Amino acid sequence: MAKRPVPDIVVGRLPIYLRELNYLVEERKFITSSQELADRLGFSSAQIRKDLSFFGEFGKQGAGYETLFLRDKLSEILKADRVWDIVLVGAGYLGHALASYGGFLGRGFRIAAIFDNDPDKIGRPIGGLVVQDSRELPQAIQDNGWQIAILAVPAAAAQEIADTLVASGIRAILNYAPRILNVPPGVRIQYIDPVIDLQHMTYYL
Amino acid sequence: MAKRPVPDIVVGRLPIYLRELNYLVEERKFITSSQELADRLGFSSAQIRKDLSFFGEFGKQGAGYETLFLRDKLSEILKADRVWDIVLVGAGYLGHALASYGGFLGRGFRIAAIFDNDPDKIGRPIGGLVVQDSRELPQAIQDNGWQIAILAVPAAAAQEIADTLVASGIRAILNYAPRILNVPPGVRIQYIDPVIDLQHMTYYL
Repeated sequence: MAKRPVPDIVVGRLPIYLRELNYLVEERKFITSSQELADRLGFSSAQIRKDLSFFGEFGKQGAGYETLFLRDKLSEILKADRVWDIVLVGAGYLGHALASYGGFLGRGFRIAAIFDNDPDKIGRPIGGLVVQDSRELPQAIQDNGWQIAILAVPAAAAQEIADTLVASGIRAILNYAPRILNVPPGVRIQYIDPVIDLQHMTYYL
Repeated sequence: MAKRPVPDIVVGRLPIYLRELNYLVEERKFITSSQELADRLGFSSAQIRKDLSFFGEFGKQGAGYETLFLRDKLSEILKADRVWDIVLVGAGYLGHALASYGGFLGRGFRIAAIFDNDPDKIGRPIGGLVVQDSRELPQAIQDNGWQIAILAVPAAAAQEIADTLVASGIRAILNYAPRILNVPPGVRIQYIDPVIDLQHMTYYL
């Protein structure tokens, strides 16, 4: 898709642009500009233009961007134009919260299965799913071809489970456990770390 | 602290540098370089040097950065060198998960109180705290001078609660609800949105 290698930090901003474009479309604003996007996001308009330029010419000089067109293009680039199955590991409080999270809907993801190693949790329904035994995880990943996992387990268990996930074919992990994980090259990992966002705000207090 | 206005996007990267410096210190690496930080974080070394230059001269030409010194400076800049009380609104599954989250420890934050409007939840213990009635929220915020809140409530309730929080004196909100909130100028808001991180990874799949 891209004409030249795209820095990961640029890739990381594309979903933020996509989300904002979806808001613009919801607001029935069908034309936008790098300046408007910049104002809404707190980025610079030069950065937005530079980021988008990796992927081609999306706007006409002086005419701005068509929000629907740019949204569809970004969606395609991020492969958000399909529905990805996610395997959720951890059926504790966080797992419950994620299983019923409304934010996945219409944005390219669905929780396909939930696993836990706690006999008290296995077999119980969460949302529309039944918690499965973690021991069945490797086989289930292989059988279903799942590539994405969310880790919602205690920090002490996270690395061992990540190893199992990766060995079974998972290639992208979203980790909620407060612990840095080692994964082999070629496997992507992202961290949900609320402290990063909190410290971003305390700077201003 | 800063010599010139710091773009918000730069401020947002400082906590990521701080976290990495803490890891380096834990690994007993007491000298680092913008290149090493760049390699570990996937940023460019030029960007790291430029970001840090907003706040002064932290390294000696050719000698790199002292990790302990830089960590302490960033901690001070981000006001992470103290412990901030957080008021948590929402005692559902996510609230439970956050109340026992191990990632706040030693990083400048603690959950000071939990509120909910559900009579079944009010009065119940979560971690070491007892869930309080949301109706007492305004008074408690004023009495305690709390400035930071975490919103772990359903999307439909989030805006109304945010309005109450802001009217009572909250100046920074970390919002887990999948909904954009309107807050007045001068109030900071950050969103935990797992889809942003998931789409960052699907780009590579």
